[in-house]
Amino acid sequence: MDATFRALCTHGYADLSIANIAEEFDKSKSLLYYHYDSKEDLLAEFLGYAIDYFLADLEAQTGDDPMESLHGLVDKVLPAELDGEEADAQRAITELRMQAVTDETFRERMTASDERFAAHVRGLLEEAAEAGVVEDVDLERTAKHLQATLAGGMFGRATTDRSDASAAIRESLHAYLDDLRVDADDE
Amino acid sequence: MDATFRALCTHGYADLSIANIAEEFDKSKSLLYYHYDSKEDLLAEFLGYAIDYFLADLEAQTGDDPMESLHGLVDKVLPAELDGEEADAQRAITELRMQAVTDETFRERMTASDERFAAHVRGLLEEAAEAGVVEDVDLERTAKHLQATLAGGMFGRATTDRSDASAAIRESLHAYLDDLRVDADDE
Repeated sequence: MDATFRALCTHGYADLSIANIAEEFDKSKSLLYYHYDSKEDLLAEFLGYAIDYFLADLEAQTGDDPMESLHGLVDKVLPAELDGEEADAQRAITELRMQAVTDETFRERMTASDERFAAHVRGLLEEAAEAGVVEDVDLERTAKHLQATLAGGMFGRATTDRSDASAAIRESLHAYLDDLRVDADDE
Repeated sequence: MDATFRALCTHGYADLSIANIAEEFDKSKSLLYYHYDSKEDLLAEFLGYAIDYFLADLEAQTGDDPMESLHGLVDKVLPAELDGEEADAQRAITELRMQAVTDETFRERMTASDERFAAHVRGLLEEAAEAGVVEDVDLERTAKHLQATLAGGMFGRATTDRSDASAAIRESLHAYLDDLRVDADDE
């Protein structure tokens, strides 16, 4: 999976081949050819791995305060600066995600990933609602809104040169979360 | 451009060739080969054409009431039902947009397109602010938030099978627009 990530960053999706991945692989190359029938096969597994890694990382960073965890999640997906490896990873995920437009296996993985992400956000919102911290809003709708805005921001960053857009979206999402608080109207 | 759209819908980006496009083209095929050096060349022009068409259509539907125009824009990008041709068009744009991850020409076009879309949204928000209809908020930030959420919703629709997500995002964006109104706190 590490070899696939490195090869994907170096070559991009369109120019990637099993041979490129094998070049990055320090174990037996025949093992790689034995396990995967095609580049698509290997990349579908890589997509599942990358999503699990990203979501496990998000879940691990969840602290005691659900609203603080939501603000942290916004900063994690749309940080002020992406270091080289994070930018590569976001570009790689964007490229792989596009395969889901036409490929059923990728589409099932992206559906499961988005549902898990939305459920995580919704869980945090529910915790905050139970603690009386957020207003009586439609939590499912709010979770899906947050997810779409984060996905659109990440997607925009991977496909345009609008360097100021990520910062504006991040700030707007922090304000959106603050507006959910029960005391927001009194401020 | 029509022939390119039909060929893209039939074959998808990965399997598309100039020969496929020529098959859909009712004029001289040699004309097509004469004008475009490669599939990428033709598709970069198609992307510009598709974006211009989409934005001109949005701008033409703008009425006298800026808030109503913004609600209309939300319904247009995330309609309850996409007919076959609209779904094909959103998938085609999503696939072309992916090329912007690695191709500078596509990236420049997507950057210009997103800027034009954000400027359109911001223009409507400014009109509403001048008419005293919306609260004193950061209009640039709000325009970029709206754009990211719409892009994320459209992207999610093209790459997952979460049929309920578009409806939730659409309703949430309508509520978000309503919350911008000066009288929102009194309701």
